[in-house]
Amino acid sequence: MQNAKDFKFEIIVKDKKAKIRVGKITTAHGIIETPAFVPVGTKGTVKGLTPQDLREAEAQILFGNTYHLHLRPGEDIVKKFGGLAKFMSWNGPTITDSGGFQVFSLGQLKMKLTEEGEGTQVNVVNIKDEGVIFRSHIDGSKHLFTPEISIEIQKKLGADLILAFDECVPHPSTHEYTREAMERTHKWALRSLTVSQRKPFYHPWRQALYGIIQGGVYQDLREKSAKFISNLDFDGIAIGGVSVGESKLEMRQAIDWSYPFLPENKPRHLLGIGEIDDIFDVIEGGIDSFDCVIPTRFGRYGIVFVGPPEGNIKNRFRLDVNKTNCARDKNPISKECLCYVCANFTRAYIHHLFRAQELLAYRLASYHNIFFINNLVKKIRESILEDKFQRFKRAWLE
Amino acid sequence: MQNAKDFKFEIIVKDKKAKIRVGKITTAHGIIETPAFVPVGTKGTVKGLTPQDLREAEAQILFGNTYHLHLRPGEDIVKKFGGLAKFMSWNGPTITDSGGFQVFSLGQLKMKLTEEGEGTQVNVVNIKDEGVIFRSHIDGSKHLFTPEISIEIQKKLGADLILAFDECVPHPSTHEYTREAMERTHKWALRSLTVSQRKPFYHPWRQALYGIIQGGVYQDLREKSAKFISNLDFDGIAIGGVSVGESKLEMRQAIDWSYPFLPENKPRHLLGIGEIDDIFDVIEGGIDSFDCVIPTRFGRYGIVFVGPPEGNIKNRFRLDVNKTNCARDKNPISKECLCYVCANFTRAYIHHLFRAQELLAYRLASYHNIFFINNLVKKIRESILEDKFQRFKRAWLE
Repeated sequence: MQNAKDFKFEIIVKDKKAKIRVGKITTAHGIIETPAFVPVGTKGTVKGLTPQDLREAEAQILFGNTYHLHLRPGEDIVKKFGGLAKFMSWNGPTITDSGGFQVFSLGQLKMKLTEEGEGTQVNVVNIKDEGVIFRSHIDGSKHLFTPEISIEIQKKLGADLILAFDECVPHPSTHEYTREAMERTHKWALRSLTVSQRKPFYHPWRQALYGIIQGGVYQDLREKSAKFISNLDFDGIAIGGVSVGESKLEMRQAIDWSYPFLPENKPRHLLGIGEIDDIFDVIEGGIDSFDCVIPTRFGRYGIVFVGPPEGNIKNRFRLDVNKTNCARDKNPISKECLCYVCANFTRAYIHHLFRAQELLAYRLASYHNIFFINNLVKKIRESILEDKFQRFKRAWLE
Repeated sequence: MQNAKDFKFEIIVKDKKAKIRVGKITTAHGIIETPAFVPVGTKGTVKGLTPQDLREAEAQILFGNTYHLHLRPGEDIVKKFGGLAKFMSWNGPTITDSGGFQVFSLGQLKMKLTEEGEGTQVNVVNIKDEGVIFRSHIDGSKHLFTPEISIEIQKKLGADLILAFDECVPHPSTHEYTREAMERTHKWALRSLTVSQRKPFYHPWRQALYGIIQGGVYQDLREKSAKFISNLDFDGIAIGGVSVGESKLEMRQAIDWSYPFLPENKPRHLLGIGEIDDIFDVIEGGIDSFDCVIPTRFGRYGIVFVGPPEGNIKNRFRLDVNKTNCARDKNPISKECLCYVCANFTRAYIHHLFRAQELLAYRLASYHNIFFINNLVKKIRESILEDKFQRFKRAWLE
């Protein structure tokens, strides 16, 4: 049986006028101070970085993708090695998603490839109320995900926080289709809950289950979904389907429409968001944690984060270190940044590494970006505790 | 003017019967205890590793390639940033080669590509007594290397140890061509010496110049070259053209044929050698330092070093972590290894990273391999100091 003490959420400070809060999630593998950014380690590794780097870069928890880990190395191997954290040698909490997002997004990708004449498979994703049949992006093999299968896989992966199986609709989708998918997601939420509480358990620690609010860009659906999911016995609430939207407004709306229905005492996770200029909005909207591949993906492209005054809302706090004006720049990526990369390397050197397509380039830029975002979120936490959030926000965004 | 005190070679212990010795090279940027392995950081980075990793992995000195650094980022940028070590944030000694090896080997590569119909350039490498005209492997642009230019570039790069410009013949080459190339190398050695002592100097520390013995697989030429180079006023002696040979025997012969002519009081570097089963031979042949890309190149392929009893002369101390039998292996790469990778990761995890083509795979395997080889060479140093080299060698090779 799982140990019930292995999950707890406490609110440390709540702003009386605003939705903002500082909290603490306790898991069997450690504590997450919220608001928290969650770096994504899709296949059991945050690309290019070791667990030691991630600790140095102030990561508190890592995100693994069930779809990818199921296909490779397979949940049975991860289970055999003591769960995801131990498998990857990360001495801290982990969260896995349900696989839903990847099943649908990688399925679509396959369809696009097909349109370009790259194959003959169509309808790679076959959605029924029972679950989803999809093909592996690795070898084309057929797989079935149902709420029961997703939770079973996640039980074997053994993350501290796990997610209910959901359907994530593409953008744009009609109101009708979005509603259908939402209703399916709600049925799947109930089934995910049921199976999550049922034996067998493969690891001794408790795995807290988050329900997922969907509903696309439609206010009535978001509200309906928020109400439905919030009324179930989940440990936490996630908001999904936001990163596929196109505008910041849509993201903010999805949070705001859900907010009135969110239970105060449960942690809230926003899926797939984490650009620098989103973070203030997200936290201001009452979100406790959020994950995003952007810091590492941008890092691999040579886009690195810089703070004010160089970084601002116009340049979206991004510096492209590939650009020729970095070739002779003796400055670190960011003068204010206290990370290992900024303490040791010039922009010119990192520019050179990108031009030469050296492995170290991707690593250094990813390390900096993860540190930068974790550090920013830490400062935001401190600003909330000191009742200075708005002032801090203005210093960054105005 | 350069500071003459910035280079010194001392012999600590010399075996009375054998050629083996333990020594110490002092440079402006630190001390190298010999015998020493020198990891290769071709473009100003040992692929995938930070200077901090390299310190942890017990690297004492790094090797940079003049050809690559000349093409990108260019020696003027490196000079502006305080020389190669500072540019790459390596707080220790560096050595650069003359560019000769790359000019010839990458030139040949280009010709092969041409034969396969990839272009129309032939005779990419144009060798005259004056120097060599070659085309960049990056953009096809024309470049000229002469002894004067090579040394000028190396002066700007500012490594502590630099090499005379030489011609490295392909394998196999006729006696006649090898002799011609050797004679050219000797003329270039004289010109390299002259220009190395001439102003301007771009950095305040002394750059010790090594002459290079060539002569291919021919005893008379190796002896002639060893005699010629040893009689000149070089700070150290390098043996070149060995890694292009095909057999271990040829490598050992090149060392042994040169040995009688090598001055006792100058450090000896062997270019391009460093497989585990070569190391004992090389050190036994009286070599003080040697560089090789093998630990990092193999690392990127998933070939990792293991010691006895698993590693032996038959499997050449190599383990292929890509192989399926690693997929569920809970052991570290090497149980005896004290490196960060072996302390934290299983073979199964590293196998997974290679299968998933994750950046971290290349990094972890390279880190282990560099640590492994540095640690082995350190143990060999200790075994010589304790007069137990032969016993230690038998434990590894028998």
